[in-house]
Amino acid sequence: MLTKPMMRTGRTAEDLFAPIAADLEAAERILQDTIDSTRPGVSRLLDHLTHYRGKRLRPSLLLLTARACGALTHKHHVLAAVVEMIHTATLVHDDVLDCATVRRHASTINAAWGNQASILLGDYLFTHAFHLTSTLGDAEACRLIGEATNRVCSGELFQICQRGNFDLAEEAYFEMIDGKTAELTACCCRLGALYAGVPARTVEALAAFGRSLGMAFQIADDLLDLVGEERTAGKSLGTDLEQGKLTLPLIYLLRQGTPEKMSWYRAILESPENHKREQLVPDLLASGAIDDARRRAEGYARHAQEQLACLPASPFKSILESLPRRVIYRDQ
Amino acid sequence: MLTKPMMRTGRTAEDLFAPIAADLEAAERILQDTIDSTRPGVSRLLDHLTHYRGKRLRPSLLLLTARACGALTHKHHVLAAVVEMIHTATLVHDDVLDCATVRRHASTINAAWGNQASILLGDYLFTHAFHLTSTLGDAEACRLIGEATNRVCSGELFQICQRGNFDLAEEAYFEMIDGKTAELTACCCRLGALYAGVPARTVEALAAFGRSLGMAFQIADDLLDLVGEERTAGKSLGTDLEQGKLTLPLIYLLRQGTPEKMSWYRAILESPENHKREQLVPDLLASGAIDDARRRAEGYARHAQEQLACLPASPFKSILESLPRRVIYRDQ
Repeated sequence: MLTKPMMRTGRTAEDLFAPIAADLEAAERILQDTIDSTRPGVSRLLDHLTHYRGKRLRPSLLLLTARACGALTHKHHVLAAVVEMIHTATLVHDDVLDCATVRRHASTINAAWGNQASILLGDYLFTHAFHLTSTLGDAEACRLIGEATNRVCSGELFQICQRGNFDLAEEAYFEMIDGKTAELTACCCRLGALYAGVPARTVEALAAFGRSLGMAFQIADDLLDLVGEERTAGKSLGTDLEQGKLTLPLIYLLRQGTPEKMSWYRAILESPENHKREQLVPDLLASGAIDDARRRAEGYARHAQEQLACLPASPFKSILESLPRRVIYRDQ
Repeated sequence: MLTKPMMRTGRTAEDLFAPIAADLEAAERILQDTIDSTRPGVSRLLDHLTHYRGKRLRPSLLLLTARACGALTHKHHVLAAVVEMIHTATLVHDDVLDCATVRRHASTINAAWGNQASILLGDYLFTHAFHLTSTLGDAEACRLIGEATNRVCSGELFQICQRGNFDLAEEAYFEMIDGKTAELTACCCRLGALYAGVPARTVEALAAFGRSLGMAFQIADDLLDLVGEERTAGKSLGTDLEQGKLTLPLIYLLRQGTPEKMSWYRAILESPENHKREQLVPDLLASGAIDDARRRAEGYARHAQEQLACLPASPFKSILESLPRRVIYRDQ
């Protein structure tokens, strides 16, 4: 099931997460039971979701954190299913937003079933995730999941409202990716630690690990969109530029250089043509903007690793320790 | 704020719900505080939501039920805001699904801001509604809201998967509208009663009231789409037919008549032309299909009214008693 390579190091996510394979399977069963529908038509649509299965980074983070903290309960399996459902809901809606036709070598839901079914399926996944959380009988879990998804949606909404804004500040970019990506990875680690019963300061350290990991992941993803190879990335690249989304390397490029250069960059960004990536990448590399952005990702990765000092040595801790560098260097 | 006529009886929803005006205002303040965002761009988008304000039927149902049960608490105000946010989320997404450009005499979010912003705004409203529920610190409230929204989304998803299915059975139609409409009105009355502390059998009777009211409301809405007048309905009509959605009068029409008639009806329904309403309405009226559907709505309205016998007399009970007939006869 988990066969997609997490990064080009020869090791798949399945290999990497083998020590929690049984836990991931338990979470998967809960997820399937939750979204199961016997209605004709609807069940075929839900079956299509199997193509949205990826690395399962978020449930793995939650389960690894719990195991590394020394206690894994049924609540963890349920919450691992919840975070994967929320992530899948955002992917289904993102594919509509991006008019994407292929995800993980299969048709997207919108390409196969239309935008209307995709919008409703995303909603269905969101509400089922919230309801599943509530079955734990624990209002705090509902609050934490609600808070994280609020910030994910706020981050995405902020991003879409800022498309075409080429004056976007570095701080606004960090706030945006903190919401749309890092909040959910932080929540995964927080839930894993909280329900393992570790002290509050350990919970906070692990939430900080998840947040910095998410920041490093998103900066790396944005770098991949600019300077990755489509063949190895397994998806279309350059889409942020085409959609007028400013990412960190662009922000760095646009704040340096002569006024003439700046005007030229803006003209490229605003042009309706589709060769922005080819035109901008040489300057992104030469100016050091790519290197500067990569250094920021490395800074977040280091910060993430430092947070793990509170954990005792274990195979689970070792996997967590390896993740920050893995999410950055997946395209090398 | 509540100036839209609920039905053509000269009485607006504002008049009708005057006895709970202060409660509706308290719920409205909670809703505004919850969705408030200081982010530029995002806040302008959220401001646009004021145009989605309508009759506030769902929060009114919740608050009237609570008052009729004799106890209204802060929880009721919060939950009234929650149900209105969930309803608004479904409206925002419905307008994308229907490519609607006007709602309540103003541009829809999708017309003014695009489908992408609408999808994310709907998600934002869903997650904020769930998070707001969780702030009550009551997992049961989260479970009830989660369960109701699950069924709303399942009903909508089922409906979209059944578009173009002209063999839809009456039972499947009732199941569909029970999910997409009646579940949330039932939940409103359940929450109003539950948090007023009345006995379980009263809670169940009031939930049944809300469910039958919702069924009557939806059948009447579907009738309006076929035989209402656009001028008085305040929205485009005939859209169910154009979108291949079978509603009760059509189901009744399609199960009677000669094979030749049946083929002709199907040919009209399947044709890409936009005059389905004009072509089908004469037969819908002459065959008694419209009257039969109206009788079903009246049956649900009667059933709803009967459920209120458990309540002591009060001005709030009187308003609840008037609602079933009002939701049916709004276009007369």
